[in-house]
Amino acid sequence: MAKLLVLHGPNLNLLGTREPEVYGRTTLDEIDADLAARALEKGHELSSFQSNAEHALVERVQAARDDGTDFILVNPAGLTHTSVSLRDALAAVAIPFIEVHLSNPHAREPFRRQSYFSDLAVGVVCGFGALGYGLALIAATRQLEGRAPA
Amino acid sequence: MAKLLVLHGPNLNLLGTREPEVYGRTTLDEIDADLAARALEKGHELSSFQSNAEHALVERVQAARDDGTDFILVNPAGLTHTSVSLRDALAAVAIPFIEVHLSNPHAREPFRRQSYFSDLAVGVVCGFGALGYGLALIAATRQLEGRAPA
Amino acid sequence: MAKLLVLHGPNLNLLGTREPEVYGRTTLDEIDADLAARALEKGHELSSFQSNAEHALVERVQAARDDGTDFILVNPAGLTHTSVSLRDALAAVAIPFIEVHLSNPHAREPFRRQSYFSDLAVGVVCGFGALGYGLALIAATRQLEGRAPA
Amino acid sequence: MAKLLVLHGPNLNLLGTREPEVYGRTTLDEIDADLAARALEKGHELSSFQSNAEHALVERVQAARDDGTDFILVNPAGLTHTSVSLRDALAAVAIPFIEVHLSNPHAREPFRRQSYFSDLAVGVVCGFGALGYGLALIAATRQLEGRAPA
Amino acid sequence: MAKLLVLHGPNLNLLGTREPEVYGRTTLDEIDADLAARALEKGHELSSFQSNAEHALVERVQAARDDGTDFILVNPAGLTHTSVSLRDALAAVAIPFIEVHLSNPHAREPFRRQSYFSDLAVGVVCGFGALGYGLALIAATRQLEGRAPA
Amino acid sequence: MAKLLVLHGPNLNLLGTREPEVYGRTTLDEIDADLAARALEKGHELSSFQSNAEHALVERVQAARDDGTDFILVNPAGLTHTSVSLRDALAAVAIPFIEVHLSNPHAREPFRRQSYFSDLAVGVVCGFGALGYGLALIAATRQLEGRAPA
Amino acid sequence: MAKLLVLHGPNLNLLGTREPEVYGRTTLDEIDADLAARALEKGHELSSFQSNAEHALVERVQAARDDGTDFILVNPAGLTHTSVSLRDALAAVAIPFIEVHLSNPHAREPFRRQSYFSDLAVGVVCGFGALGYGLALIAATRQLEGRAPA
Amino acid sequence: MAKLLVLHGPNLNLLGTREPEVYGRTTLDEIDADLAARALEKGHELSSFQSNAEHALVERVQAARDDGTDFILVNPAGLTHTSVSLRDALAAVAIPFIEVHLSNPHAREPFRRQSYFSDLAVGVVCGFGALGYGLALIAATRQLEGRAPA
Amino acid sequence: MAKLLVLHGPNLNLLGTREPEVYGRTTLDEIDADLAARALEKGHELSSFQSNAEHALVERVQAARDDGTDFILVNPAGLTHTSVSLRDALAAVAIPFIEVHLSNPHAREPFRRQSYFSDLAVGVVCGFGALGYGLALIAATRQLEGRAPA
Amino acid sequence: MAKLLVLHGPNLNLLGTREPEVYGRTTLDEIDADLAARALEKGHELSSFQSNAEHALVERVQAARDDGTDFILVNPAGLTHTSVSLRDALAAVAIPFIEVHLSNPHAREPFRRQSYFSDLAVGVVCGFGALGYGLALIAATRQLEGRAPA
Amino acid sequence: MAKLLVLHGPNLNLLGTREPEVYGRTTLDEIDADLAARALEKGHELSSFQSNAEHALVERVQAARDDGTDFILVNPAGLTHTSVSLRDALAAVAIPFIEVHLSNPHAREPFRRQSYFSDLAVGVVCGFGALGYGLALIAATRQLEGRAPA
Amino acid sequence: MAKLLVLHGPNLNLLGTREPEVYGRTTLDEIDADLAARALEKGHELSSFQSNAEHALVERVQAARDDGTDFILVNPAGLTHTSVSLRDALAAVAIPFIEVHLSNPHAREPFRRQSYFSDLAVGVVCGFGALGYGLALIAATRQLEGRAPA
Repeated sequence: MAKLLVLHGPNLNLLGTREPEVYGRTTLDEIDADLAARALEKGHELSSFQSNAEHALVERVQAARDDGTDFILVNPAGLTHTSVSLRDALAAVAIPFIEVHLSNPHAREPFRRQSYFSDLAVGVVCGFGALGYGLALIAATRQLEGRAPA
Repeated sequence: MAKLLVLHGPNLNLLGTREPEVYGRTTLDEIDADLAARALEKGHELSSFQSNAEHALVERVQAARDDGTDFILVNPAGLTHTSVSLRDALAAVAIPFIEVHLSNPHAREPFRRQSYFSDLAVGVVCGFGALGYGLALIAATRQLEGRAPA
Repeated sequence: MAKLLVLHGPNLNLLGTREPEVYGRTTLDEIDADLAARALEKGHELSSFQSNAEHALVERVQAARDDGTDFILVNPAGLTHTSVSLRDALAAVAIPFIEVHLSNPHAREPFRRQSYFSDLAVGVVCGFGALGYGLALIAATRQLEGRAPA
Repeated sequence: MAKLLVLHGPNLNLLGTREPEVYGRTTLDEIDADLAARALEKGHELSSFQSNAEHALVERVQAARDDGTDFILVNPAGLTHTSVSLRDALAAVAIPFIEVHLSNPHAREPFRRQSYFSDLAVGVVCGFGALGYGLALIAATRQLEGRAPA
Repeated sequence: MAKLLVLHGPNLNLLGTREPEVYGRTTLDEIDADLAARALEKGHELSSFQSNAEHALVERVQAARDDGTDFILVNPAGLTHTSVSLRDALAAVAIPFIEVHLSNPHAREPFRRQSYFSDLAVGVVCGFGALGYGLALIAATRQLEGRAPA
Repeated sequence: MAKLLVLHGPNLNLLGTREPEVYGRTTLDEIDADLAARALEKGHELSSFQSNAEHALVERVQAARDDGTDFILVNPAGLTHTSVSLRDALAAVAIPFIEVHLSNPHAREPFRRQSYFSDLAVGVVCGFGALGYGLALIAATRQLEGRAPA
Repeated sequence: MAKLLVLHGPNLNLLGTREPEVYGRTTLDEIDADLAARALEKGHELSSFQSNAEHALVERVQAARDDGTDFILVNPAGLTHTSVSLRDALAAVAIPFIEVHLSNPHAREPFRRQSYFSDLAVGVVCGFGALGYGLALIAATRQLEGRAPA
Repeated sequence: MAKLLVLHGPNLNLLGTREPEVYGRTTLDEIDADLAARALEKGHELSSFQSNAEHALVERVQAARDDGTDFILVNPAGLTHTSVSLRDALAAVAIPFIEVHLSNPHAREPFRRQSYFSDLAVGVVCGFGALGYGLALIAATRQLEGRAPA
Repeated sequence: MAKLLVLHGPNLNLLGTREPEVYGRTTLDEIDADLAARALEKGHELSSFQSNAEHALVERVQAARDDGTDFILVNPAGLTHTSVSLRDALAAVAIPFIEVHLSNPHAREPFRRQSYFSDLAVGVVCGFGALGYGLALIAATRQLEGRAPA
Repeated sequence: MAKLLVLHGPNLNLLGTREPEVYGRTTLDEIDADLAARALEKGHELSSFQSNAEHALVERVQAARDDGTDFILVNPAGLTHTSVSLRDALAAVAIPFIEVHLSNPHAREPFRRQSYFSDLAVGVVCGFGALGYGLALIAATRQLEGRAPA
Repeated sequence: MAKLLVLHGPNLNLLGTREPEVYGRTTLDEIDADLAARALEKGHELSSFQSNAEHALVERVQAARDDGTDFILVNPAGLTHTSVSLRDALAAVAIPFIEVHLSNPHAREPFRRQSYFSDLAVGVVCGFGALGYGLALIAATRQLEGRAPA
Repeated sequence: MAKLLVLHGPNLNLLGTREPEVYGRTTLDEIDADLAARALEKGHELSSFQSNAEHALVERVQAARDDGTDFILVNPAGLTHTSVSLRDALAAVAIPFIEVHLSNPHAREPFRRQSYFSDLAVGVVCGFGALGYGLALIAATRQLEGRAPA
């Protein structure tokens, strides 16, 4: 059994209510519940944390070092392009993580092409809406179960 | 029932034999068979095509317009950074596609950060080895089944 | 009657006390009171919010979606050049806004020439000290009253 | 009593007739009349000058040194990005000026982000259509009346 | 019957006399006469205008809005790389235009690679000497006659 | 009598079927037939070659050295921005050529602004659809007939 | 007697526990205690403050203006490269400061070469682990004691 | 006997009146008279022309081709950095010229470091005020007298 | 005894016939025969392969993994600057290689300064015409014979 | 007991005499004597070397390999930004070194931000005048004494 | 009476012998003698110094501080683009200087456009061969005689 | 019989002693002796010169003009990236030269990719250790013997 943590960055609390025609109507709570259920099915424990505050995310990552977190799924949202502190926290705790984006940053403003996370991440999933978290969960559990990426 | 096409770019024919400790021991044929089986389970038809030649890939994409292909999964490999022709072919047939990479280009040479495909793609999956194709297939079938990305 | 929100970014709480020979002696409270009074004269309601914390500003913007705010005047201060999260919040709530700066960023360090807000803003006012807020208020009420910009 | 000069650059003579849905239906003459009236109310004299010719604008600025002009409002239009000569003229006469733009250059082509005027200007107003001139007039008179920017 | 306007930028009045071994011996008047004759053959009216002054060209373009000009052929010469005002005039009157250059700018100094006109133009013709105007005329009349570009 | 060669790059075989509202309904065969007929009228021989393969185009250019080709019209399509090999082939055979594009690359993605061919070409024609080939043919025959570009 | 403030940015609370082979085993509390003791020896008062939150650091700096702080030693950590707000706070209070880094940013990722603090700082010390704070303290006290830097 | 032409660009008509403590009190007329006298001493004829209009300078250069001008001294002032048309005129008439600047552009704003004239000029003289014209005259006459630059 | 492979990229089949005054009159066959003979003298086997097709070169490299090739000499010609696929193939088979160029790319167009091969190569030889292959063969055999580079 | 070497680059021989109000009145000899005394106190031997010649510094570094030098303090002065040879010498002898600057290069001309030494150095100290050498000595001896940087 | 120093950088000892058709046949000694004579005529003393060694030039500049040099004419030759140390020496002694170049660097390789001296110099003279020294001498003596630049 | 000169730049005197596992154990003297012997075999005279001083190398090159040197092999080492003076010396004497590097600069720090010599050199050899000199000698003698590069 492994322990997974899902981190949602700024503005993701609006999910399901903001531009539903673009991002879908599923709320963040629903997403988190779904992910936890799927993890549980495979015998893992998954908890989630959203914050609009960089420092709260940094501290949640720091805490992950002590609470036995084995893997992190992180959607840094707007902090993707601006937070060296969150990057440093992830590097400091040395827990493997996957970077997730709801939309496809490559199809948006040029400044979204630079991420402070991608080069440290195991991998990146973007453009699939909330489904992206689910895909990342599959990849994470596969890796946690010691199976080489097929 | 939908029709899916998987495109593998140059050097991917070496998969399973080249640096197995990095890329795993699964061969491309095994990957393709596995993807076809998974697609079939969901009632879809999936075929695969690998080539080391840009023009062969371009022409396979062109043919997809006429053979009723509904969705494309493409790992352009080295052509990711160099082929406007393959990009143009995908744009011309206007079939939605997902870009897949076995490794994480953001953790490699700087020239791998530029892709001629990402801004046109529905989404991108990278860094999970062959599993990435499976994740892209899930995203593709979800979209084909008309469900909004949850 | 419309509802307006004025947002002041980091360090603006020092206004009136920091370098008064440059920024004047008017405090932020005095500015806010003056703006509220002017708005009231025209039959509008105006409230203000200052924070040194990016997340507090992000959340105040999110709340604006639910409290019926019609227009925002924002001086992002140091966050002008660094906060994609605040930009994203403004884009998410889709409330029109004007960007205000006390000083003229074009006459300062080169890094102040890049703003994450200007391309989304209705317009920008800079270089006039606290008067800039008043000018932005005029522009905002004019637009709220449905008059085409003359 | 102070003397103000309003300078309008190339193509602004089309105002009120070009794309009225974007720029409004007010003509340049109406704007100038309105500004003069407002200035007069405050006891100031305001004259306007439009030209499509860089040299005519340069020479009008040079003349301002001798005719007692105290403040200039300038919308350099297309010259914003290309005229060092007009910049030099403004610097040479050393009359304080405000830069005005009808539209928001930050929301247009990338080359519009560079201005040869902003770093010399007291301040910049953009994005509010013809109202921008009015706002600049307020800022100019405030400064002329010796009141610190509040 | 359509009305066409040919605009020649700075220094083109020297044509036929300057470096004839490079640019040929045909004078600008001869070119204009030839173009007018060819247009007339197809039942169109074509007039020409050369100026070394940016503002004269800007004002000729502005006048084209009122005199019923349907299409413009423009060789901005040195203004190609420096005149936002002429670009703005062409955009303001919203008359379709083709950009023509006698020489091939791509084979000259690097600064000639940037044009303020190409992205707004219907198309570009360069490198064929005075013949380029004739080719542009063919393209213009074809489009004016409502035939899709074959 | 001269011998002309028309080269069409990748994806141009789709012409007339791909996005006909943009590129027209004329097929490549129709274009080639039309060009050959026009050349014949002037007593020249014109043949065409399309390929999606860079090497096939390279080898067709090499063959042109031996088959007496006097002039080449080339639309490198996606290879415009990526093929030094095709550029090298054209330079090696030292046959004069004109670069043709159906659409206007200056009005598309930024990466289309760089061409490996323009600085070597006699001239460039872009933005006029298939008509561009016809215009290039006129320019080519004019030059072949030894007439100075008028 | 002078009053000194030591500011530690995000993730420095992990010191002594994170990668001890790189950063040593001394905790932040031990460092702070040691610095306070050394300052006291020279008759000065030194207090420390760590936060993972940019706004908390900003506000601590603002408070320093009122509590009589004479000198600041600051290790902005990840905020070094991203916080204009903290820079602005330091500039606003106009208290001299030294920038300290445990590791040598020049030997790390390229983005660590840009600091928003170095050009405002009295000086910079980097690469010596926790010893760097001690060296900065020596430099600070030397300056506070009015001795010219020898 | 040779014929020399001195060209003064925009704003140089202010010379002697603008910032005399920087540029000296000598007026442009005095400079021109002095230069003419010095040229005459050596048996040459020298005339001067100042304009704030780019096209007037362009046309003066064009006229120089026909009036037998042997050498040009040009201070393009603000046009130094913006006028390809004036550069083209000088290149077209193929008269050797020297570029002169009163101040030292290298010690001013970064955009003054780029000149459209320097690479075509025989040489450049800058930073010596009006004396620069005199030095350029010496260099010009030396060259006209067929003496190799010693 | 070792096995060496010489790869020649696009257009090198023209060698000896293209611009002989620049590249010499030796044909590629003569070069290959000479290299094979020299290798044989030292007891090694050397075969050569030229193609204008990137994929053919990629596949020849892939085959080299299975046919016991110990060392590769490669002149990628135009692919030097454009083929990540060929680079990837060389990296995948992990056979040491030397990059050879007939001409000196540093003395040609700026885009020839970037190579996708040099950083992976053992070394680079350029500028010596066909002799360069011979020099590379010496270096290769020296290394194959286990002698440290003297 | 360890052996330390202090290297002073070009113009540092002027210390104490050049701009004493900026750099202090302490001469280089006094600094060197002070450093030697402090080193001796801790049981180490320290010698100093200044040169205005790059090669003399290079050769002093080479000699350090043979004379048993354990640590180097180097202020490359103007060579900081221009000498790959001195960098290479330090890399070749593989003696750990600290980079020292009297002034703060980050607060000076932009070209001073690039150092050929910082990424190889143990650490950097800048902005504290001659005191910087003393601080670097403390860091050096701490490291020589085998104590982990606290 | 003033004291002037002329500094000649690397390779200028070849003057008069290297490419005489370009640089003339006058040797450096002849130039120096001529300059000294001209200075003497005006009652000034002028000495010259050439070196191929950066440090020798640095030290000659340092010595100028003590020998009463009032003005320096310097042709840094190849050091123009590479020597911060020579720049620093000139800044340290704070003697006004003029930068001279025989050829016109703007018409040569791009790297010659950057000078470490121009922004500190009183002015720059280039492109006139050895005559440039003479012109610089005139400018220097004019300034030394306290006459405002006319 | 021809006369060859081998130039070794800074730090190459360490050869054979510095990092022998990387650069081999052959000393510079041994290399030079070997080269001289090989040259002698072919009836040529070869001498060598190493210096850590840029000016010594510059002067050795200058002397080569007078001592009848026909060809130069130069390894500028660290000066490769920093010495315009050495480049100028080689250009001034106009003796053909080959650039040699022991290691492969393309596989090292990014700043090593820029050379001030490559574009002037006949060719470049890098990455083969001391053998590179031998290869360059072969190329040099071949060229000296008047044989076209085969």
